[in-house]
Amino acid sequence: MLTMTQTALGGAKVLEDPLEYLPCSMILEFKRGQPIYTQNQPSTNLCLVISGKVKISRVSDAGNSVLVDIYQADEFFGESCLTDSFYPETADALERTQVMTWTTGEIERLAAERPKLALALLQLVIQRSIDFGHRIECFAVDTIGRRLARALVRFSDRFGHQTESGASEMLSFTHELLSQYVGTSREIVTHYMNLFRREGYVQYSRRSVVVNADAIKQWLRQQSDVAMTAT
Amino acid sequence: MLTMTQTALGGAKVLEDPLEYLPCSMILEFKRGQPIYTQNQPSTNLCLVISGKVKISRVSDAGNSVLVDIYQADEFFGESCLTDSFYPETADALERTQVMTWTTGEIERLAAERPKLALALLQLVIQRSIDFGHRIECFAVDTIGRRLARALVRFSDRFGHQTESGASEMLSFTHELLSQYVGTSREIVTHYMNLFRREGYVQYSRRSVVVNADAIKQWLRQQSDVAMTAT
Repeated sequence: MLTMTQTALGGAKVLEDPLEYLPCSMILEFKRGQPIYTQNQPSTNLCLVISGKVKISRVSDAGNSVLVDIYQADEFFGESCLTDSFYPETADALERTQVMTWTTGEIERLAAERPKLALALLQLVIQRSIDFGHRIECFAVDTIGRRLARALVRFSDRFGHQTESGASEMLSFTHELLSQYVGTSREIVTHYMNLFRREGYVQYSRRSVVVNADAIKQWLRQQSDVAMTAT
Repeated sequence: MLTMTQTALGGAKVLEDPLEYLPCSMILEFKRGQPIYTQNQPSTNLCLVISGKVKISRVSDAGNSVLVDIYQADEFFGESCLTDSFYPETADALERTQVMTWTTGEIERLAAERPKLALALLQLVIQRSIDFGHRIECFAVDTIGRRLARALVRFSDRFGHQTESGASEMLSFTHELLSQYVGTSREIVTHYMNLFRREGYVQYSRRSVVVNADAIKQWLRQQSDVAMTAT
């Protein structure tokens, strides 16, 4: 077997930040719900969220929308412009959003001048494909309820701020959007969200939702233990 | 909306090949079924398959194995060594396999000297994350039968050679392995494979399977049309 070093286990590796190697560029502004690019009109730009949130989705052959991910300030999207593959994704502003863009030509020229830029982008995309790997694992082995629970933990971790009780408060996503991430119907998401509310895992207020991520994680662990015992 | 250029639509972009910028390195040999690295002993090397096939898998909390992908000659794996994330994947030789490896330190040093190396690796990982995006879409919207059909098309496209009839012949994967890719039980894969055999989509011989990918694609399209009409 290949051997490991302390660095890999200890996570002591220093990650490069692409922003350190990118010059400022044009900023575009999009209203809530406005498309940034679409499946039929793909972007040829690498994009950076300056403020707001961007929803990346795909539409299946049968017309179903699948939420790939949501990106926020300081996160990149549209990186598929750097390959020759036609990638049928759509980017929409989830709220009023500012985006900075660089053309593929600019990125290639800058990466040739500043090798650490390409390395930084490489690390970023590897991290993204690791996240996708986790998601594929969830789809392959988890029930809908567990997938929704993991989605709530992930979104509250990424988009929430901690409350005094140690829970995480974030802007409430619609059940429609959650269903497109989890791969089920809106009705089934509503069913599970009611269940989670009764168990105290989530509390809704007018525009936000408080997610008790620790309690959800414990529920996920307990369910795994049951499955382990049963096999 | 951001505009598109002819290049992005026409797919005329020239992709860089990492192999052009990598020096030869140590070659390791693995027997069929031998682990190359495991979840508990992750690799700190970027690996290239020289010959044979490598199975990348993950084990869920509940102990279920999920097949991430299978890589063959001239394909890289283990790229997560270039980030600081602990990525719990296992790499096993699916058959007698030779692997060339470079340490993360070597890759970082070489990428600094040869900027096109990092760009080439970046394009490769973006392509991989695009593939993962397709897979997430399948999991989110497709039935098990359709997921299995897509897996057969993809594997025959990647690992098969064309027969006189225009179908694709490849080494037969076990139903267990297919079930780990599709996210279901071996029994359900066997049920669908019998169905596909009766429809003439697959034919088994002693060690190989002939996949009629065109017929499967047509079946997938017809099913989508039905779904579109129903909505």
